[in-house]
Amino acid sequence: MAVNGYGTIGKRVADAVAKQPDLELVGVAKTRPNFEARRAIEKGYPLYMSGEGSRSEFDAAGLPLAGTVREMLSAADVVVDAAPDRVGAENRKLYDAANVRAIFQGGEKADVAEVSFNALGNYAAARGKRRVRVVSCNTTGIARAAAVVLPRWGAERWDVTLIRRAADPAESKKGPLNGIVPTLHIPSHHGPDVRTIFPELSISTVAVVVPTTLMHVHVNRVRLRNPPANATEIVAAFRGTPRFRLFAPWERVEGTPQVMEFARSRGLGLNDVMENVLWEDGVTLDGPDAYFFQAIHQESVVVPESIDAIRAMFDLAPDGPSSIAMTDRALGLSDR
Amino acid sequence: MAVNGYGTIGKRVADAVAKQPDLELVGVAKTRPNFEARRAIEKGYPLYMSGEGSRSEFDAAGLPLAGTVREMLSAADVVVDAAPDRVGAENRKLYDAANVRAIFQGGEKADVAEVSFNALGNYAAARGKRRVRVVSCNTTGIARAAAVVLPRWGAERWDVTLIRRAADPAESKKGPLNGIVPTLHIPSHHGPDVRTIFPELSISTVAVVVPTTLMHVHVNRVRLRNPPANATEIVAAFRGTPRFRLFAPWERVEGTPQVMEFARSRGLGLNDVMENVLWEDGVTLDGPDAYFFQAIHQESVVVPESIDAIRAMFDLAPDGPSSIAMTDRALGLSDR
Amino acid sequence: MAVNGYGTIGKRVADAVAKQPDLELVGVAKTRPNFEARRAIEKGYPLYMSGEGSRSEFDAAGLPLAGTVREMLSAADVVVDAAPDRVGAENRKLYDAANVRAIFQGGEKADVAEVSFNALGNYAAARGKRRVRVVSCNTTGIARAAAVVLPRWGAERWDVTLIRRAADPAESKKGPLNGIVPTLHIPSHHGPDVRTIFPELSISTVAVVVPTTLMHVHVNRVRLRNPPANATEIVAAFRGTPRFRLFAPWERVEGTPQVMEFARSRGLGLNDVMENVLWEDGVTLDGPDAYFFQAIHQESVVVPESIDAIRAMFDLAPDGPSSIAMTDRALGLSDR
Amino acid sequence: MAVNGYGTIGKRVADAVAKQPDLELVGVAKTRPNFEARRAIEKGYPLYMSGEGSRSEFDAAGLPLAGTVREMLSAADVVVDAAPDRVGAENRKLYDAANVRAIFQGGEKADVAEVSFNALGNYAAARGKRRVRVVSCNTTGIARAAAVVLPRWGAERWDVTLIRRAADPAESKKGPLNGIVPTLHIPSHHGPDVRTIFPELSISTVAVVVPTTLMHVHVNRVRLRNPPANATEIVAAFRGTPRFRLFAPWERVEGTPQVMEFARSRGLGLNDVMENVLWEDGVTLDGPDAYFFQAIHQESVVVPESIDAIRAMFDLAPDGPSSIAMTDRALGLSDR
Repeated sequence: MAVNGYGTIGKRVADAVAKQPDLELVGVAKTRPNFEARRAIEKGYPLYMSGEGSRSEFDAAGLPLAGTVREMLSAADVVVDAAPDRVGAENRKLYDAANVRAIFQGGEKADVAEVSFNALGNYAAARGKRRVRVVSCNTTGIARAAAVVLPRWGAERWDVTLIRRAADPAESKKGPLNGIVPTLHIPSHHGPDVRTIFPELSISTVAVVVPTTLMHVHVNRVRLRNPPANATEIVAAFRGTPRFRLFAPWERVEGTPQVMEFARSRGLGLNDVMENVLWEDGVTLDGPDAYFFQAIHQESVVVPESIDAIRAMFDLAPDGPSSIAMTDRALGLSDR
Repeated sequence: MAVNGYGTIGKRVADAVAKQPDLELVGVAKTRPNFEARRAIEKGYPLYMSGEGSRSEFDAAGLPLAGTVREMLSAADVVVDAAPDRVGAENRKLYDAANVRAIFQGGEKADVAEVSFNALGNYAAARGKRRVRVVSCNTTGIARAAAVVLPRWGAERWDVTLIRRAADPAESKKGPLNGIVPTLHIPSHHGPDVRTIFPELSISTVAVVVPTTLMHVHVNRVRLRNPPANATEIVAAFRGTPRFRLFAPWERVEGTPQVMEFARSRGLGLNDVMENVLWEDGVTLDGPDAYFFQAIHQESVVVPESIDAIRAMFDLAPDGPSSIAMTDRALGLSDR
Repeated sequence: MAVNGYGTIGKRVADAVAKQPDLELVGVAKTRPNFEARRAIEKGYPLYMSGEGSRSEFDAAGLPLAGTVREMLSAADVVVDAAPDRVGAENRKLYDAANVRAIFQGGEKADVAEVSFNALGNYAAARGKRRVRVVSCNTTGIARAAAVVLPRWGAERWDVTLIRRAADPAESKKGPLNGIVPTLHIPSHHGPDVRTIFPELSISTVAVVVPTTLMHVHVNRVRLRNPPANATEIVAAFRGTPRFRLFAPWERVEGTPQVMEFARSRGLGLNDVMENVLWEDGVTLDGPDAYFFQAIHQESVVVPESIDAIRAMFDLAPDGPSSIAMTDRALGLSDR
Repeated sequence: MAVNGYGTIGKRVADAVAKQPDLELVGVAKTRPNFEARRAIEKGYPLYMSGEGSRSEFDAAGLPLAGTVREMLSAADVVVDAAPDRVGAENRKLYDAANVRAIFQGGEKADVAEVSFNALGNYAAARGKRRVRVVSCNTTGIARAAAVVLPRWGAERWDVTLIRRAADPAESKKGPLNGIVPTLHIPSHHGPDVRTIFPELSISTVAVVVPTTLMHVHVNRVRLRNPPANATEIVAAFRGTPRFRLFAPWERVEGTPQVMEFARSRGLGLNDVMENVLWEDGVTLDGPDAYFFQAIHQESVVVPESIDAIRAMFDLAPDGPSSIAMTDRALGLSDR
């Protein structure tokens, strides 16, 4: 397995693959040297150079190259494309030429792949496929929640307001610094994107961007078809599902700053929190209407999904729950 | 007319009263000297000292006092209480003792007054009353929108997600600096508060706090009873109503930073924007469901409402629309 | 007089010119329509289209054009170039072709003009010149302070740390959102730039960028040649000089948020504060070493300088102090 | 060894002690349950209750208590006080009563202890002492740099501008959100505090607070007595000293956001970076004047110092360099 693009997502996928007992990391490809490329070397990941790169830059930095991206691809059965948005579509030709299967990120359009994927949502759909797209962080978050709600109580209608982080922590050139920017097009692209996983779901999504780097927060309103007796049942359902983490009031997690503090303390690497994060006290039932907040760590929630996608493509696990359990155990996510 | 408390709201109400042809400002009361107290003196507003203050502090600052708050009240027919949240309820005794009518802010509980007020929503309800509460900035914003929507198309259900600014621009001790904090209690207090104006409205509100100082943004989803043919009709209805300002795409107002830039350019004072701000391109109709964003300037939207409240209490205008027109002309809000 | 570029600086210069009794505004030029262009029309400024613009865009927005930038230039004696950084140098050809004098901003290199200018620093040097460059906001701030300190006490050495705002309030695409970015090159360009005004000054400047939009803050350390007896004399010197505003402790101005609140209350337009802002309590003398903070409003401090530059070029005032007094009276800056 | 107070500093000191081969962690004390207390339990740290706490709260949270803080103290030879600022001085009585040695944090006044401490600066001074104060994060950062510079080149004068982070990442109630707040008192307390380590140093410090949570940044200007030939020698001296980490240009670390990204990638726990962070390209020599930036991670730089302080107090290492080497090896800081 190879990773093309070693940024926010790529480095996490590489670490995650390295932790799986049944997967092997062939190498990672990067365009230019930086502190992250050095870190890859220190971890023992073979470092390859992406197309646009210059060998002399790596030499000057003292970072040994294992070869070009083409060489990396020739040694791999599957590549996870973690290039910037829309570059993945370009890279597809490269992967086709190398006759290697590929996983694309949610920044690409759905037609880059045969199927869009979420492990809790539609694991089986990726079985045996050659090109799979893991949906974006926000879509992953919603799809996971839908995978809990839909089979239990059904949803007549699902409304989400997405309060989006403006930039990742290390992207220091993006704003806004002090303001809220609405995404005027309604629905935002997330609603249609969720339907690549749950085609029947009546969902509407509206998004705004706010000046924070930590996490997205979703405000969910769901009109249930067959509501449970109380919110406690909903809490229990989320608590009982992998890739969800709920905070109780006594834990004093007020907002995303404390979720990140929890993540740092847990120490799974890169202060990631790969689960949907819910607040027990925010799960509310009012007649048929269920409400809940969830915080989504944009940098890492798609990482376990990428691992499961590989298993589905190569039929390495009997079913979704088995793959999820293997992935989560290896990543240390099982301490719920 | 007197203003007790000369902070964010108080100084704006004082300026607004000073601009009205039919109202007279008796004075403003403040606890301690600062640059705003000096500004009041420069504007010619008699400056009185609130209860907790110390005369020697004002003397040291060279700011002449016209007397104590009690003296101010004895010269006034009505006082606008602009004290910090929950202090207004304390002050009520003072006002009762001085036999002066009073307007309270939305930070007080509803039972501080005989009626909660919004000019577009329930002007007539404040007629002849002795104690009126102008609802908070967010509630004012929603009530105004409801006053447009309900009589035209009805609303089966109204859902609002409030993305709230964390602090006012000059409140430099509040956070969060980098994060999103959900208000876990659902509904937030805004929904019930709107029902003090529109008791029949089926409304649910959910709030989050984000690190910005400029404006709140509301995401509105309304299921209409009798929807119009298209979103253009909705845009036209908002455009045709006072206290709404809509931005067209060519104006390139991306978010609240540009709304504030517009406000600075308009120059009504303190870079205020007292209207609900909507984006034309964000007004969307999908079957019976209408969606729109509105930005609410927390510092100033309640200011014209306070003026109208006075007129209603003393029957100084034939009806709501007349009072609104007088207020807005005097404040320069009529340039839509 | 004409303004080419109607953004942050251009719109302020236009307003400032419109307020001067001895200057006349021919018009302003802008590339594309937006809410600011509409505002220019509402103020009665003839609106011209810059080179890259498209007439149909203005037509669609309903904004009447007075002509092209070339037509504007042909009607003007002098143009203030307020184009983005480095574009001014391009525009110079246009101005030369139109045989119009020009004032450039500090974002251009010094050699764009015959002389770099600061009204307190070197007014006389711009007399009769055809091309003058008003130095940047930060350089203006330092040059003004040097104009107070150098003639009184001399400076063996002047060290400034510039804590720079990351973006203007309405620039919502710039970061960093949460972090400090040092300008690694030492000295920063500001030191050499100050020497275009005070060639003999031994100055070193170091800069960092921080996530705020309001103002820059300078930390000044000056080793004086002939220090005064105490800091009070330094405070008095600043207080006695135009274009300085000092806050006393009782005014409770803690930082730049309250300076901006003061600016909003003062209401000179666009909540500008065109003076260097100092805190009395921050002016410190320790033997020969003077320390003081100054806050610089990046959007507006250069505006009065541009007006003075025009007067110097056309010899419209007997000397610097006279021009400054005229400018400041017209702008309302004389209320110290 | 025990830790009283399990917040930002306390939890780090506990982790650091747990990693040392020659120290044993008796337990940690906390006032109230939260997610961090649960984390302590998960790590196997005995959890004690601080004085103000309520046992029922811990019971309700299902967190088993090992006893009260007094019981913890009776089992320890030394306690690291990590209570909030100024509470440590109160706690001293408790420690005296328990006859336990104590290490205090820099938020306490110097007279809380017999000596103020920095491992590179004055290790020997803490030998055999019963009460030691580890100086604050900023003072630690400056003292470390002084320990490199002073013995090599001497310093006639040292000027530091401290650009301070406003709050820690999980402190979501502090501001300012958008502004710069100068600390008007000059010198700031840091200068005198550095002199508790280097009494002869002529140092002046000036501080401002900016809206970021990640790290402080220091701008250093040092007039050297015997300057080296070039900046490269200074870079080499820092590179050759423990507790310094320098970034080369090719690593593309622009500012504190990327330093934190590096810290996350390194994965020492809690994304800490316990070293002073310098940028090679920012180290500048201009005649006798050396300039350099350093970024200081306020949450963790004092942690290794606390470990060394214990060793010094109990004479567990032959000298400072030996203790530092032991500490750093155990903490994983030796990968320079």
